[in-house]
Amino acid sequence: MGPHPAVAAIRLAVRRVLHDILTEHSAHSARAAHCASAASAASRGTGPCDRRAPLVLVACSGGADSMGLASALAFEAPKLGVRAGGVTVDHGLQSGSDIRAAEVVARLTALGLDPVESVAVSVGRDGGPEAAARDARYGALDSAAERHGAAAVLLAHTRDDQAETVLLGLARGSGIRSLSGMAAVSGAGRRYRRPFLQLDRQTVRTACLAQSIPVWDDPHNADPAYTRSRLRQEGLPALEKALGKGVVEALARTAQLSRDDADALDAWAADAESTVRDDAGQLEVEKLFALPPAVRRRVLRKAAITAGAPAGSLFARHIEEVDRLITGWRGQSGINLPGRVEALRQGGRLVLRQG
Amino acid sequence: MGPHPAVAAIRLAVRRVLHDILTEHSAHSARAAHCASAASAASRGTGPCDRRAPLVLVACSGGADSMGLASALAFEAPKLGVRAGGVTVDHGLQSGSDIRAAEVVARLTALGLDPVESVAVSVGRDGGPEAAARDARYGALDSAAERHGAAAVLLAHTRDDQAETVLLGLARGSGIRSLSGMAAVSGAGRRYRRPFLQLDRQTVRTACLAQSIPVWDDPHNADPAYTRSRLRQEGLPALEKALGKGVVEALARTAQLSRDDADALDAWAADAESTVRDDAGQLEVEKLFALPPAVRRRVLRKAAITAGAPAGSLFARHIEEVDRLITGWRGQSGINLPGRVEALRQGGRLVLRQG
Repeated sequence: MGPHPAVAAIRLAVRRVLHDILTEHSAHSARAAHCASAASAASRGTGPCDRRAPLVLVACSGGADSMGLASALAFEAPKLGVRAGGVTVDHGLQSGSDIRAAEVVARLTALGLDPVESVAVSVGRDGGPEAAARDARYGALDSAAERHGAAAVLLAHTRDDQAETVLLGLARGSGIRSLSGMAAVSGAGRRYRRPFLQLDRQTVRTACLAQSIPVWDDPHNADPAYTRSRLRQEGLPALEKALGKGVVEALARTAQLSRDDADALDAWAADAESTVRDDAGQLEVEKLFALPPAVRRRVLRKAAITAGAPAGSLFARHIEEVDRLITGWRGQSGINLPGRVEALRQGGRLVLRQG
Repeated sequence: MGPHPAVAAIRLAVRRVLHDILTEHSAHSARAAHCASAASAASRGTGPCDRRAPLVLVACSGGADSMGLASALAFEAPKLGVRAGGVTVDHGLQSGSDIRAAEVVARLTALGLDPVESVAVSVGRDGGPEAAARDARYGALDSAAERHGAAAVLLAHTRDDQAETVLLGLARGSGIRSLSGMAAVSGAGRRYRRPFLQLDRQTVRTACLAQSIPVWDDPHNADPAYTRSRLRQEGLPALEKALGKGVVEALARTAQLSRDDADALDAWAADAESTVRDDAGQLEVEKLFALPPAVRRRVLRKAAITAGAPAGSLFARHIEEVDRLITGWRGQSGINLPGRVEALRQGGRLVLRQG
């Protein structure tokens, strides 16, 4: 008898990602093969540790999603000659979080992962509590990956997380890039992988139950102080009730389609950008006018950022206003943008400069 | 003392659209000026009716949104030398709907609109009750516009309707075109205009109250049998509770940005389409492969439709499967698409043909 279908599903998802990592790793190793002596020592397994076997870490909170991911990694990695380790981040936001982290370390170790470590971080306040916690977490994961020379870090985001991320992006109203959710592969050197991005949360939870894996429910996930929790507990269920059960899948598909669309348009804008400047490098109004609005808006956004406007504070309405200097010219004065950047029309040129 | 701010807001929205219509109409009239005698008779106002003054119709259900629109049209049109009329469509879906329609006619007439008429339609079943009612309604509006020689038909869709439309599109998960909602201008000859697309529903209702305009609440709007009603009554409020009050505005902005993005990518795909065919007009796999995924997917979709697949039945997952013939080739057999269209790879060509 094979494993429970949910267990089979999470293992398959991890296996596919490990295959990708191995393929990329061996291509990388082949490029590095001029270090012949080190490689041959390692291939005989005689070095202090087998450096040829790539290490894959799982980021684990102790919740069902990441414990399920850890279990699947522990199962699949040895079969593919991959070393599997784990990291848990102690955000220090609740009393006893250090004990919690030690428990997660014990559970990951019990699954056979090695190395396993807990990293304590201090969460700042920049961008709100959720963004600050996220920044601290990724910082810790980045340094853990570098410290251990990991080929990749697996993250347990599911299709449900993806749907929530799309809705959060939708609420910003800043266009399709913010609808594109999380990528299956992201980070410097393609470090982060999300094997569960097309699996629903329920499957992963079922897989934990089927394997009798103890999981911990993070109280933050149900805390209505957090936008994502409210969305998860109330917003998305209400939307499903109105629109039908396929909403999560539809949102996840929207993410993928939007990502590809945004990539294509960014590429177009990068091409266009070089054609709309005069010999002095200034933006020519007439040539900007001739671009499709979607492309022009991206060229303008990039020019504003280049001039010093912080990307995170530059909203769609700012770019719309700059665009009206081109498409709705009636002699208006300069537009003030975040970061003390001013956009103004001078003769046939659009000037963006920091004051 | 000026009018109530809400009344001023709806009038301004209508005035802007009437200005656009007049500008386009006079450009059109100038082109038609070789019909000199007719034009000069009309300009003296001696013809059977003054054919030079354009007629603008309002589509009115008797609900607050369209009664507000009718009131603003009745106020603004005479000041701009525009004739204003109204049409109400009797869908015949409830008993007494004919009496209802007669009442709406009386109210529009009382506002000073002329001509005013009620058009009875029979609603079919194609595509579900909402789509069938919409098809019947636009059919009736189209013929009313043609019968009266109207320059435009105003529709009372608000920003809230737009937000609902974006969410309905999101639930389809078929990409950014379905997120682009309703256009401010649409239909053959730019017939349909939506002056309230950037106004919230509450403003329009307030304007009706402030003018003591009697309005009728369509029971369909609260009937949970309709997806849009469920969305309006429960889905959107829950989303606002989770994400904040700006959701409706964010969704409406998403619609506009998505529309421009989709237009640009469609234009790119149309350009690309001619470059990926060989001399015999067949699609070359290698050239398709080199396109950005977002562009390739659009080329494939269009090719499938050209081969006979009905656009409405062709989903993102179909196109994904066809795309795998190009990007994930492992000798798979032909893909069956709706409309008995088969997609298959033959040598270095992608063939789409109807069986």
